[in-house]
Amino acid sequence: MPHNAYNPAMYALGASPSVIRAIFEYSLRRRAEIGEENVFDFSIGNPSVPPPAAVTDALLALVRDEPPVALHGYTSGPGAFSTRVGISEDYRRRFGVPVRPEDVYVTCGAAASLTVTLSALCEPGDEVILLSPFFPEYRVFVERAGGVPVVVPCRPDDFQPDVPAIAAAVTPRTRALIVNTPNNPTGVAYTPAVMAGLADALARASERVGRPVYLISDEPYRELVYDRPVADSPMKLYPRTVVCYSYSKSLSLPGERIGYIALAPDMPQGGEVFAAICGAGRALGFVCAPSLMQKLITACPGMTADLSVYRANRDLLFDALTEDGFDCVRPDGAFYLFVRSPLPDAAAFSEEAKKEEILFVPSDSFGTPGYVRIAYCVAPDVIRRSLPAFARLAVRCGLKK
Amino acid sequence: MPHNAYNPAMYALGASPSVIRAIFEYSLRRRAEIGEENVFDFSIGNPSVPPPAAVTDALLALVRDEPPVALHGYTSGPGAFSTRVGISEDYRRRFGVPVRPEDVYVTCGAAASLTVTLSALCEPGDEVILLSPFFPEYRVFVERAGGVPVVVPCRPDDFQPDVPAIAAAVTPRTRALIVNTPNNPTGVAYTPAVMAGLADALARASERVGRPVYLISDEPYRELVYDRPVADSPMKLYPRTVVCYSYSKSLSLPGERIGYIALAPDMPQGGEVFAAICGAGRALGFVCAPSLMQKLITACPGMTADLSVYRANRDLLFDALTEDGFDCVRPDGAFYLFVRSPLPDAAAFSEEAKKEEILFVPSDSFGTPGYVRIAYCVAPDVIRRSLPAFARLAVRCGLKK
Repeated sequence: MPHNAYNPAMYALGASPSVIRAIFEYSLRRRAEIGEENVFDFSIGNPSVPPPAAVTDALLALVRDEPPVALHGYTSGPGAFSTRVGISEDYRRRFGVPVRPEDVYVTCGAAASLTVTLSALCEPGDEVILLSPFFPEYRVFVERAGGVPVVVPCRPDDFQPDVPAIAAAVTPRTRALIVNTPNNPTGVAYTPAVMAGLADALARASERVGRPVYLISDEPYRELVYDRPVADSPMKLYPRTVVCYSYSKSLSLPGERIGYIALAPDMPQGGEVFAAICGAGRALGFVCAPSLMQKLITACPGMTADLSVYRANRDLLFDALTEDGFDCVRPDGAFYLFVRSPLPDAAAFSEEAKKEEILFVPSDSFGTPGYVRIAYCVAPDVIRRSLPAFARLAVRCGLKK
Repeated sequence: MPHNAYNPAMYALGASPSVIRAIFEYSLRRRAEIGEENVFDFSIGNPSVPPPAAVTDALLALVRDEPPVALHGYTSGPGAFSTRVGISEDYRRRFGVPVRPEDVYVTCGAAASLTVTLSALCEPGDEVILLSPFFPEYRVFVERAGGVPVVVPCRPDDFQPDVPAIAAAVTPRTRALIVNTPNNPTGVAYTPAVMAGLADALARASERVGRPVYLISDEPYRELVYDRPVADSPMKLYPRTVVCYSYSKSLSLPGERIGYIALAPDMPQGGEVFAAICGAGRALGFVCAPSLMQKLITACPGMTADLSVYRANRDLLFDALTEDGFDCVRPDGAFYLFVRSPLPDAAAFSEEAKKEEILFVPSDSFGTPGYVRIAYCVAPDVIRRSLPAFARLAVRCGLKK
């Protein structure tokens, strides 16, 4: 037949799964071969702590006590109004920003928050600035929304955003900038000073090019910060802020696909932007976020899973790796370490690590070559047992004798 | 500012919600004004029967007994393998078609099944044939996937597909045909003879234009058939069949967003098509279908809610309306009656009905003007109490004295 029998771009995406996913699949095979306990898998950001017991209790109570037709019924597209009110109140309580329930759109998780936002905002050919290193799916989401990713590297010494470089990258085609703090893959939380500078620079660049530029703040790791209070809301700094949130990490419900989009209350044309978000949700096939999960998060405001495990993991692993001679920025949050490859090629370093049954992800697909991402959201015991293997890896790489 | 601040097409979709949704919102206001029990709302296809008690029990057992990290964790993109095996076994049991687990992709409901399938298959400008009357969101989904809807009317006497007209509509740009039986909005189930003729005609048309044409079978109402056995699988007739399913109606879980895509086991290039589906799911932001619901449907194979209520509703309403002088095809399934408007304009007819506090949807947005859709998935008591109002409506419209 002379034609394709499918969309070749979608085939390419499906046929070459993300590097992260490919390593995860290797991990499954290797565990089967040599035993679960002998593989040190740091490849994937799957929370290892359970949801709070109160969340499980609330879930049981909903299923046991609520009339099932209403419990499992359609909600309106942007979510049950009671859920939107609950999110609005929670946001106000945490950050003091009076987000209106009418500006909250409940989503099927973080990825949906981003694809819906990008489809709502982007016209074909619009540029979206990504700060490298970045979560690789950002590129997929921007391109699928018809946008063009424009990559601006973070400062190499501390992985904070390079504000002058971002300002210089804004053109009359720029539609948005995606910010992710605490960051996947570096674990760095952007400082208040950098965020304030970024907001100021965006406002001026937007003025210069005569077009509004949105700040899309992807915040799934918002509550996972170890050495400082939870970051303040970028809504306070920049009125064209769209917050994309997910309960995946904070409540350890990653498979349940529940999150939200919220607009800053003083966003110009906020009503129109919200309508575009509703339209994009409809066009992409998101009828409503899962109904039971909408009710669950409404019943559990302000809770988080026991995130202290991640802090302990970070301390243990960061100290040991630094001791071994590895070079990495001390992460403030999330559950990732971004380690400079001691070999010229991060893929080669990852292969060396495999010889010690350590699995992590080379950084090339994150847009910053020469590093590896170590996801330490594993049981503390895995960290402890992996330390001798990391020490041997340091020897293999010539970092110590 | 000289530019839009958002995507105007998405704004238009969000700012003008579907006609169905607009009438539903009117219904909510009117109920508040004159009392719930005085409004006869037949506007929306929201199941009124609860899920089977065994489903609620299974849900409780999962939440109570399963380790929560696994219960709520990410599954792989196409779904947990055990869920895919369960769907494959269920399909084989029902229809005798050996669908492979590897050809099952678990989705966030019917809309997602369709948007993922259309994005996977369509290249820009590809034509997708819709049979009018059709569910209005089909047009939105096709256009968002870059496709062009081509509408072929069903036969006006019985609303069965017009096979010769469909064959004639196939061009070298045709990528797919969407079939929905039992049908929303007519309630008609396509006959085995028509389906066989359609499959044969598609195969020949596909040969004629030198390009594969897919049969997308949208089957959320598959189990809701009243006077004949459940329709057979189109996979038996046509190897390029993609089944899009949702548990919304059969298990009364519409808000939970759980369904699947399944490919016919003998589909040419099925592996490539499946990869494109995985890629499309990834690009649209569907990381995985809700994890708890994946486990729930795996625990409840072959169950359905008590659908006998809908049959009783159909009999009661069809007989009464026919008695009143209204003209409509007796529906075989789903929970819709498609009634010919006794006034030249279906919108005017709907306004007359509002005077009797009866709410239904004029058919224009379904692609076939001159009818109204009555969704009878309501409590039987609503039907009974509405009959005098329908009788008065018949008088208003000159159908009887």
